[in-house]
Amino acid sequence: MAWDDGASAISAAVTVPDPTPELLQRAAAVRRAALELGRLDGERRRLAVRAMAAALEDGAESILAANRQDLEAAVAEQLAPALLARLKLDGSKLAAAIEGVRQVAELPDPVGQRQLHTELDQGLELERISVPLGVVGVIFEARPDAVIQIASLAVRSGNGAILKGGREATASCLAIHGALRQGLAAAGLAPEVLELLTSRQESLGLLKLDGLVDLIIPRGSNELVRFIQDHTRIPVLGHADGLCHLYVDREVDVAQAVRIAVDSKTHYPAACNAIETLLVHREAVATFLPTAIAALEAAGVELRGDDEARGAGVRLAATEADWGTEYGDLTLAVKVVGSLGEATEHIARYGSRHTDAICTSDGDRAERFLAGVDSAGVYHNCSTRFADGFRYGFGAEVGISTQTLPPRGPVGLEGLVTYRYRLRGEGQIAGDYGPGQRSYTHRSLPL
Amino acid sequence: MAWDDGASAISAAVTVPDPTPELLQRAAAVRRAALELGRLDGERRRLAVRAMAAALEDGAESILAANRQDLEAAVAEQLAPALLARLKLDGSKLAAAIEGVRQVAELPDPVGQRQLHTELDQGLELERISVPLGVVGVIFEARPDAVIQIASLAVRSGNGAILKGGREATASCLAIHGALRQGLAAAGLAPEVLELLTSRQESLGLLKLDGLVDLIIPRGSNELVRFIQDHTRIPVLGHADGLCHLYVDREVDVAQAVRIAVDSKTHYPAACNAIETLLVHREAVATFLPTAIAALEAAGVELRGDDEARGAGVRLAATEADWGTEYGDLTLAVKVVGSLGEATEHIARYGSRHTDAICTSDGDRAERFLAGVDSAGVYHNCSTRFADGFRYGFGAEVGISTQTLPPRGPVGLEGLVTYRYRLRGEGQIAGDYGPGQRSYTHRSLPL
Repeated sequence: MAWDDGASAISAAVTVPDPTPELLQRAAAVRRAALELGRLDGERRRLAVRAMAAALEDGAESILAANRQDLEAAVAEQLAPALLARLKLDGSKLAAAIEGVRQVAELPDPVGQRQLHTELDQGLELERISVPLGVVGVIFEARPDAVIQIASLAVRSGNGAILKGGREATASCLAIHGALRQGLAAAGLAPEVLELLTSRQESLGLLKLDGLVDLIIPRGSNELVRFIQDHTRIPVLGHADGLCHLYVDREVDVAQAVRIAVDSKTHYPAACNAIETLLVHREAVATFLPTAIAALEAAGVELRGDDEARGAGVRLAATEADWGTEYGDLTLAVKVVGSLGEATEHIARYGSRHTDAICTSDGDRAERFLAGVDSAGVYHNCSTRFADGFRYGFGAEVGISTQTLPPRGPVGLEGLVTYRYRLRGEGQIAGDYGPGQRSYTHRSLPL
Repeated sequence: MAWDDGASAISAAVTVPDPTPELLQRAAAVRRAALELGRLDGERRRLAVRAMAAALEDGAESILAANRQDLEAAVAEQLAPALLARLKLDGSKLAAAIEGVRQVAELPDPVGQRQLHTELDQGLELERISVPLGVVGVIFEARPDAVIQIASLAVRSGNGAILKGGREATASCLAIHGALRQGLAAAGLAPEVLELLTSRQESLGLLKLDGLVDLIIPRGSNELVRFIQDHTRIPVLGHADGLCHLYVDREVDVAQAVRIAVDSKTHYPAACNAIETLLVHREAVATFLPTAIAALEAAGVELRGDDEARGAGVRLAATEADWGTEYGDLTLAVKVVGSLGEATEHIARYGSRHTDAICTSDGDRAERFLAGVDSAGVYHNCSTRFADGFRYGFGAEVGISTQTLPPRGPVGLEGLVTYRYRLRGEGQIAGDYGPGQRSYTHRSLPL
């Protein structure tokens, strides 16, 4: 449970204990309830999410009171100001979270979609149907409003959820969990579909609930995500790193490229889709870099460059370590490259395959970049900050994945469903098919 | 490398060494070549696979000679007959494998499909395009023909592959690998896209090539798969278990259910989609079980039943361990249940979420089973043996996955591709959007 005590205490030496029989029992109850939930039609699940929103409204007073209690304890324990800010839940933040729940209720149902429909032979029909994953385990640091968001996404998509908030948010999480369960009950659903873990032992045990939990979603620091990835065999939806690049090519609209660089770095520097390194084509150095340096420094950015970039005005020297560092603040590394290929090689070597962008007025070179960079998002002439489920139009974001396998990039509700093959026959057996016997028709049927 | 010396030697205590610099270099070369391959159009990749088939034909003599050499060594080492059978590659088996390569060449290109196309705002267009995974690592036991199949699937879908065959198939794999590379070169492609590992140290190192290898595909025993799953952070496509059930409901066409039971058990008992347990509704015991027992015993099946099944004629007693055993041979556990719910609970408890079937003449109860069993395949009135990529009409099978997350069940070429988001703008930045500013249009565009 080291990660519950703050990132600095995380250690790879932590031994993850087996889940207790009590935890196994609770997880099995979530799974049973989730299976029931997944069988309901989408409209019932929509009404349940609306009821959850209403229950949060009804319980707002006591949720805010519980949050004040957490905050007082956190202040007494001298938690970092950034952590206090994430922990704090005032009336308007809660109202926004509840509005988010209502929006999730209105999202199209991701369950029950027929993705494939094939006649294998006369009277033997195969279909592939989207179904809920089952149970998701969600581990948060601070941010009690995130509990609200992910719980609503889970229920909308027919999943159970086992939630574990940070220790510092215990009272807030308990109050929120209580309200969400009241909402489920009011809608006639089993409240067991949402479970909350509060003890350290339990939340480590969660990592070993293979077979009962289908996906772990960590919401917190890179260290939290990496710890979880290293200590569970359950698939993890998330990303430990967000090392994004902006490459400014040799022919470029300077004013536009400068705006994009400033936005990509400063719009929200702590976000994973902010850039950490600016690559500049040697032929663009003279025209682009002085203007860019002035604009970035005016926005409070500290620049660290290689020798050529320093020759063009970057004050500090970058070391090898800078190319692999996700600063997460107003620091930006700057490197001059001789070609588009050198830029894409740098990205392949140091990047985290999250989101990388090119600014160029040459369409062919843009396409070469888009085809040659193997990241979840590859952009031309726009800010890397667009890498986000809401901005992509998914209505909600379950997480952002930098894995190669799908789901990749910003993941909406589709990250909480899988599929199942259903085959309906009239007594067909495999032994009937083969040379000189029956053969498969493999005829596409309407979806 | 314990698993290379046979299942019995597998030990969880094996320490996986870090890859050597030489292996890292070779893997990086595969990755570079794969990126080039992935950028080619589908027709070029189709021609390459055809050239691989032609090169295998040209090299048939030397491949068969190499295989005889492996076989002689295997006989001298007194390898098990089953292993010898899998290792052996005669002219007709090789011809069938080459025919398989030609079929893979003609499969539709899984790369470059536009899966999503959205206008985020005027002049800011998002698309999601299928792209190759990158590099797959494939670990085989014996079966040199499987090397041929997976290499052709990898190249067809624009991926590089690092192949590791069993030690006993080294000469065969070297000959096949040589021919495949000749085919690639003849088609004007970089042969580096296919790499073969032969040493023990290398193939353990493969498990630690995170960032260079995107997916590991094990082809072999349950022990091999489990060992790999436990010793790599790279995603693994495969299944350690195949514990499938057939449930015979209370109202059933007895003759049909008996045929399905016999086929599901005996058509290929070693396959993962063969059944291991037969569940029988109490009301069907008298009509179904005596006929089923006679037919199964006539087909050479040893039955192990609970008390009620034994009362109806099953000879041997099943123990608790039987419900969780994947026999892989002509043994079948039989259990009598009191309800459909009891059957689905048994499956949830002991099954591996691979494929489970119901025989019933009651359509409503069939639908309850199909909705209530959380396996990759849920079948009504047909054999579990249909769970197979070829039978599903995918044209080829990369593997079968019992994970919950997609890809699930039999996986065709789509298991070797992922997607990438491309966003093309005209200078848009995230700071332009928000309350009182621009808003997103999120308009669907034609695919």
